[in-house]
Amino acid sequence: MPEPLRIGIAGLGTVGCGVLALLRDNATLLEQRTGRPIEAVAVSSRDRGKDRGVSLDGLDWCDDARALAAHPAVDVVVELIGGSEGIARALSETAFANGKHLVTANKALLAHHGAALADAARQADRHLGYEAAVAGGIPIVKALREGLAGNRIGGVYGILNGTCNYIMTAMHESVQAGQARDFDSVLQEAQELGYAEADPSTDIDGIDAAHKLAILTSVVFGCPVDFAAVHVEGIRHVSALDIGFAIELGYRVKLLGITRDGEAAVTQRVHPCMIRETAPIARVDGVFNAVVAEGDRIGSALFEGPGAGAGPTASAVVADLVDIARGQIMPAFPAGAAGTSRPAAKPMDHHVGAYYIRLMVVDKPGVIAGIAACLRDEQVSVEAMLQRGRNPGELVPVVLTTHEAQESAVVSALAAIDRLDTVLEPPRMIRIEAF
Amino acid sequence: MPEPLRIGIAGLGTVGCGVLALLRDNATLLEQRTGRPIEAVAVSSRDRGKDRGVSLDGLDWCDDARALAAHPAVDVVVELIGGSEGIARALSETAFANGKHLVTANKALLAHHGAALADAARQADRHLGYEAAVAGGIPIVKALREGLAGNRIGGVYGILNGTCNYIMTAMHESVQAGQARDFDSVLQEAQELGYAEADPSTDIDGIDAAHKLAILTSVVFGCPVDFAAVHVEGIRHVSALDIGFAIELGYRVKLLGITRDGEAAVTQRVHPCMIRETAPIARVDGVFNAVVAEGDRIGSALFEGPGAGAGPTASAVVADLVDIARGQIMPAFPAGAAGTSRPAAKPMDHHVGAYYIRLMVVDKPGVIAGIAACLRDEQVSVEAMLQRGRNPGELVPVVLTTHEAQESAVVSALAAIDRLDTVLEPPRMIRIEAF
Repeated sequence: MPEPLRIGIAGLGTVGCGVLALLRDNATLLEQRTGRPIEAVAVSSRDRGKDRGVSLDGLDWCDDARALAAHPAVDVVVELIGGSEGIARALSETAFANGKHLVTANKALLAHHGAALADAARQADRHLGYEAAVAGGIPIVKALREGLAGNRIGGVYGILNGTCNYIMTAMHESVQAGQARDFDSVLQEAQELGYAEADPSTDIDGIDAAHKLAILTSVVFGCPVDFAAVHVEGIRHVSALDIGFAIELGYRVKLLGITRDGEAAVTQRVHPCMIRETAPIARVDGVFNAVVAEGDRIGSALFEGPGAGAGPTASAVVADLVDIARGQIMPAFPAGAAGTSRPAAKPMDHHVGAYYIRLMVVDKPGVIAGIAACLRDEQVSVEAMLQRGRNPGELVPVVLTTHEAQESAVVSALAAIDRLDTVLEPPRMIRIEAF
Repeated sequence: MPEPLRIGIAGLGTVGCGVLALLRDNATLLEQRTGRPIEAVAVSSRDRGKDRGVSLDGLDWCDDARALAAHPAVDVVVELIGGSEGIARALSETAFANGKHLVTANKALLAHHGAALADAARQADRHLGYEAAVAGGIPIVKALREGLAGNRIGGVYGILNGTCNYIMTAMHESVQAGQARDFDSVLQEAQELGYAEADPSTDIDGIDAAHKLAILTSVVFGCPVDFAAVHVEGIRHVSALDIGFAIELGYRVKLLGITRDGEAAVTQRVHPCMIRETAPIARVDGVFNAVVAEGDRIGSALFEGPGAGAGPTASAVVADLVDIARGQIMPAFPAGAAGTSRPAAKPMDHHVGAYYIRLMVVDKPGVIAGIAACLRDEQVSVEAMLQRGRNPGELVPVVLTTHEAQESAVVSALAAIDRLDTVLEPPRMIRIEAF
């Protein structure tokens, strides 16, 4: 009779209950696949009395999550409490200090303390599993760390936040249906449908995607997790007007996380992007996540699936448990192309790319000439210009796309444009990515 | 100084040379990632004098591939010779008999002898790696066997042959451009571009896709590899006419491999399918491969990437070498939902689905009534009927789609229809899949 792998689960929200349900429903299958039972033996949560729709019979209840992390009957601590500090962090450190493996779905914790936790895991000779922290239903950490381990990875980019992708998709569909809806209205709908939180800022300001991107960066490049070095912009300023122009120009607007191994340093950035409508990732809609890996041997590969939810996240947690049950223990962040160099702290300073610029101007002769002069002065070359609809003397949108330019030059040009009398609103800029 | 993992490569075609190049180009990275060097030490091929554009300096040359498989300095034999019998099979058996790990890109070998080889690997306590045998650049074996190991998998389907997908894509594009090209013309072009072999039958008759499907079936369901139980149809009979109707009906035609865990048994089938143009896999075009996994926890996830070529295949071979270097040895086919039961030998006998039927009939009153009667007699319910273009007294196409029906009933109805005087060509049928 093989020894069971004994699990302690800290946090019994929908994911924790989903893990319990999975371990129970698929117990026989998991034992067949790994050669040993995987059994939940202890749990910890705030409210013991709450009905969670899943039986807690036979499970040891710990009022203190740290007690769970030191529980003598537990081999693996599954941390599903959340938050980068406080109890989740203390629990994780306690787990390694007590010789337990740790599996976590906590992207904030890893984004802020991933390097220290990976060290603690290595010193304790225990596994730090975090497949569930990035794009739940897609086994992307395993794909990058193992499946594509033969490749020098040049870059990874993806749709890492389902809430933002839902909002962007709904806005595109509304524009295409001729009934353009703006950000606030779609956000409210997403909240009503449960796709966005009551306080949506972590999602829509790009923080959640940035947490995941910082983790992916260390998976592929081996450098220490450095969330502070991620350039982060959210989607609050993406308007139906800009989405309409994007569609007209053959683009889609998505919030992407992009990490690249540049000549000087690794760059990490999260911001709205215009991508060609024919790019495979442009067609990943709704709450789905997707990640594209670019490798020197494969060219590129795309992985698409559900990014959140009890089932997909539990699937990822249990994939880590299966690895541990099979004895497949490995460093959390194996070395990569970038080795131990740190990501660039201000990645956009040296960014070079094409740009979409939208201005609200007074419709009168000479306006375009003034704008063009500002761009010329910064050596920014215009690729195309669109002025739809005449409305002499009134406010009209003017759209420009640029050839490749350095971001600092574009920013200077936009500041100069903003000072023009004929430009009546702050310029809007969306970076164009050539995938 | 850690022990290197020493590799012997049998077969120095484009993939073998690609593996050599990868091990050399990314040697430092691989050592950092795995903690030990991965070094080619011996090779075997037919023609020693040939210039392959890659240096063989320092490599032990074996004229006999079986000698390579027994070479005392080799830890892992990489089999890239191909073919299900002969030298590839003998070499593989010799490798395990001599205590070597085996990594292979040989789908035919695994489709025919996968069960026996998995047994030999287990008895020798060695690893049988075959990531490169299915959808080269996509780490799908690892994703299914490890990344989604928490899921009860209901089914897996995919575009498993790049040649067929290239031909289907080119035919669709030609129809959409109003310059319909038929199968033979597109095949010839594919041959000229190097996307199809001089003898294309293994690809276009679905054999290659069926080899891969038989392997995937055992990965997800744990039953012994049973190629003989795969229902196989190729794409020779897919016409531009049918693709035109498919587009009109909102479908795309793809050659898919589909494996499902049915109530009675696992069913495996490879045949042209009509799939909704909005299904994610419908948009995977050209030589790309894609696999969709349906799991009880994730819903579905899609994996897309290059299916062939020196780089992607070498990437997959080296992923297996990395697993071995890291000590991640596991059974070739872990148990799955279907356990050790065998796949159904005649999977289409009990197939239930919707069908597209295209007939060439004489355009005169009463023709449709006769056809409808044949379908009614077999209890096959018509969903839609299309008769484009009138041409009294001449040959015109009539297209029908059915509601869900048992295949045996559809086959009987088509036989009856074929006997009608007004139906002048054998009926064409394409199964409609509701993804």
